[in-house]
Amino acid sequence: MREGFFIVFEGPDGSGKSTQVKLLSKHLMQDGHHCMVTEEPGGTDAGRILRDTILNPKMEISKKTELFLFLADRAEHVNKVIEPALNDGKVVICSRYFYSTLVYQGIARKLLPYKLLTKLNMFAVNDIIPDVVFYLDCSPEYGLSKAKQSSQVASSYHNGDRIEREGIEFQEKVREGYLRIARQFKSIFVVLPQQKSIEEVSDRIYREAKRRIEHD
Amino acid sequence: MREGFFIVFEGPDGSGKSTQVKLLSKHLMQDGHHCMVTEEPGGTDAGRILRDTILNPKMEISKKTELFLFLADRAEHVNKVIEPALNDGKVVICSRYFYSTLVYQGIARKLLPYKLLTKLNMFAVNDIIPDVVFYLDCSPEYGLSKAKQSSQVASSYHNGDRIEREGIEFQEKVREGYLRIARQFKSIFVVLPQQKSIEEVSDRIYREAKRRIEHD
Repeated sequence: MREGFFIVFEGPDGSGKSTQVKLLSKHLMQDGHHCMVTEEPGGTDAGRILRDTILNPKMEISKKTELFLFLADRAEHVNKVIEPALNDGKVVICSRYFYSTLVYQGIARKLLPYKLLTKLNMFAVNDIIPDVVFYLDCSPEYGLSKAKQSSQVASSYHNGDRIEREGIEFQEKVREGYLRIARQFKSIFVVLPQQKSIEEVSDRIYREAKRRIEHD
Repeated sequence: MREGFFIVFEGPDGSGKSTQVKLLSKHLMQDGHHCMVTEEPGGTDAGRILRDTILNPKMEISKKTELFLFLADRAEHVNKVIEPALNDGKVVICSRYFYSTLVYQGIARKLLPYKLLTKLNMFAVNDIIPDVVFYLDCSPEYGLSKAKQSSQVASSYHNGDRIEREGIEFQEKVREGYLRIARQFKSIFVVLPQQKSIEEVSDRIYREAKRRIEHD
């Protein structure tokens, strides 16, 4: 049934995911592809409510609650948005997917055993795996400083974002987690180093995506 | 650490849980016990948002999303409300707990294997098991007719309640599921048959609760 192509961007806050998502979709649309751009958390009506609940600092939800809300958001997103678009033959470009949960809640916070968390996520996403994952690598210091800058223009809850409040040490674990997962899923992961300019990174992503779509 | 006593009421919509919860808490308070009455879903600030999301017919969330929202609600409820009250020595009386999820999402809908669902729930509730569960048994026809009556005086979303819309056949599976679970956890489950009057049922519940609290 599935005929589309599924592209995921991963990386810490401040790594430039939104910028690269926009540039890639622009380039692919210029080539005549039908693209759908989406994100997690918050890619559906229910998801936006869940995202606000997760990010609301007044709520101070527990870590376990947060994990289940990410899973609920993801199940809804795949069911209502991603799967229908893929079945419709679209190129789906999604910022964050279950690798975020494996890294943040699994490897960095050790909330649940890694295998069990993988099983739960595969259940939530109806076993839908991306065709390619672009991981935007960056140092914890760089990511945090960029994330702070963007929060000044973003919505007001962003300043209190619970994930960003956890500091450098946590972001270091996140980065190690991503690099571990990139090795585990190396046939679909493409690691983009931070040193390159936005244009260089965007160019490499576009060429890689194009090559994979054409060989699909 | 835990010094309180944990009482759960289970049963389909319309089985009389709210009435029996009120009567039991009244009787126990007359005996001088410090009671805390609560319910799932919706026993916390975040939980009320999640409950509205689950019950909103316009949202039409997927079954998997619903399952994760129940787990999120439960994790928050145990962490913020139930566990602190038990540590404080209170008698906690809660309408619905993880048995509802085992029955509705596990046995009736077969969303996830029963063992995996049990494991997830035990994770969500920090392994906190009730001291006694009062299961209010009733026929699907009786439960549905009572649930419809009460929805006329309850909040407006109740008319569109997704769980109640599923009809007799589903309620039959729910009842079988509860009876199976009551056998599985027979040391803590007390099954109350529907035929008795409200006063007779309430009297039996009170005596049973009192006996178990005193032997605790």
